[in-house]
Amino acid sequence: MTLSPTPRSTINRGKHRAVTEREALHAVLDAALVCHLAVVVDGAPLVLPTGFGRDGDTIFLHGSTGARSLREAATGVPVCVAVTLVDGVVYARSVFDHSMNYRSAVVHGTAVPVTDPERKAHALKVLTEHIAPGSWDYARPPTAKELAATSVLALDLTEASVKIRSGPPGDEDEDVAANARWAGVLPLRTHWGEPEPDPLLVGEWAVPEHVTGRD
Amino acid sequence: MTLSPTPRSTINRGKHRAVTEREALHAVLDAALVCHLAVVVDGAPLVLPTGFGRDGDTIFLHGSTGARSLREAATGVPVCVAVTLVDGVVYARSVFDHSMNYRSAVVHGTAVPVTDPERKAHALKVLTEHIAPGSWDYARPPTAKELAATSVLALDLTEASVKIRSGPPGDEDEDVAANARWAGVLPLRTHWGEPEPDPLLVGEWAVPEHVTGRD
Repeated sequence: MTLSPTPRSTINRGKHRAVTEREALHAVLDAALVCHLAVVVDGAPLVLPTGFGRDGDTIFLHGSTGARSLREAATGVPVCVAVTLVDGVVYARSVFDHSMNYRSAVVHGTAVPVTDPERKAHALKVLTEHIAPGSWDYARPPTAKELAATSVLALDLTEASVKIRSGPPGDEDEDVAANARWAGVLPLRTHWGEPEPDPLLVGEWAVPEHVTGRD
Repeated sequence: MTLSPTPRSTINRGKHRAVTEREALHAVLDAALVCHLAVVVDGAPLVLPTGFGRDGDTIFLHGSTGARSLREAATGVPVCVAVTLVDGVVYARSVFDHSMNYRSAVVHGTAVPVTDPERKAHALKVLTEHIAPGSWDYARPPTAKELAATSVLALDLTEASVKIRSGPPGDEDEDVAANARWAGVLPLRTHWGEPEPDPLLVGEWAVPEHVTGRD
């Protein structure tokens, strides 16, 4: 299944970097911990980071019921969500051809509040398992009060674009021929550090496997 | 010097996480490789990742002269820029108190095109040195044609907010007292990988020190 770009989700720059497979969109979304949610407030843009999780061709966004961007997004206005992973810095022979390797997804649509209790619980499970896989079953479940204090929005992935840059610099032919400067990529890696137990834990605790074994 | 928040840049949620020192804003911006630039296009929000660099209390944004978000932002319309660094996942005893540790900066303002040739060259140096420190002096300088093909915007940092979460989970007292589940933080670390030389390099090349020695 391919993406269905509309004019505003059609990539104008660097078309050779547009990736049209829906699987690529899913992979970019699944690899990121936060997205950037943009809404229009009083005619001006507002963009804030927020947690999310993907369920098929829907992403769920959540936050406090008091969060401004979530409140705005819940009123049926257009939203835009960007997810970006930086994979490295591209050191070209020329300043101009310096670049970054990255995976980027941008979604346009209208966010819909998730209010049905059963669907809201499902959305929170998706969100929790995205941010902390294994925690939904391990941690104390949400109370009715906690559920009420959480806003969840659903955003359809129909109108989305993916752009990926990978590989070596794209220097000008003359610069490559001159062979006068080093060029290459400095990869940026992320990895999980050692778990830091809460100082308020009492007694001896083994770190659970869903934390120690996280990919 | 403290930040000067206006209503839209005032943090409503998690006020205890708002950091008011301008140095904290600078530190968050300096630690990130990309920002998310949001503009309003035909009444709808558009947010895209883009490179940037900071010079005092100004950030410079750049991209191709053809890039839609840059073109829109250059017309004197309001913009919003978010920079986010994720530092870890907070595994609470309850699902509800799960969170992330992060450093976040949001800037509101009007982006101004940088057209004066001397200032544009300065802005490109700032941008280049942010993305690839040492490359401005090492790499082949931009030609007049390359300079013309690059849009640079300046955005003042006057209206900005910073929000930082760090440290252990903030579980409810009852959950802490129950001591029934592990809780803690799984830190997310980023580091530079081994430089990957461009396959088009001819002969033996040592990787330059500004690449191998990057912090």
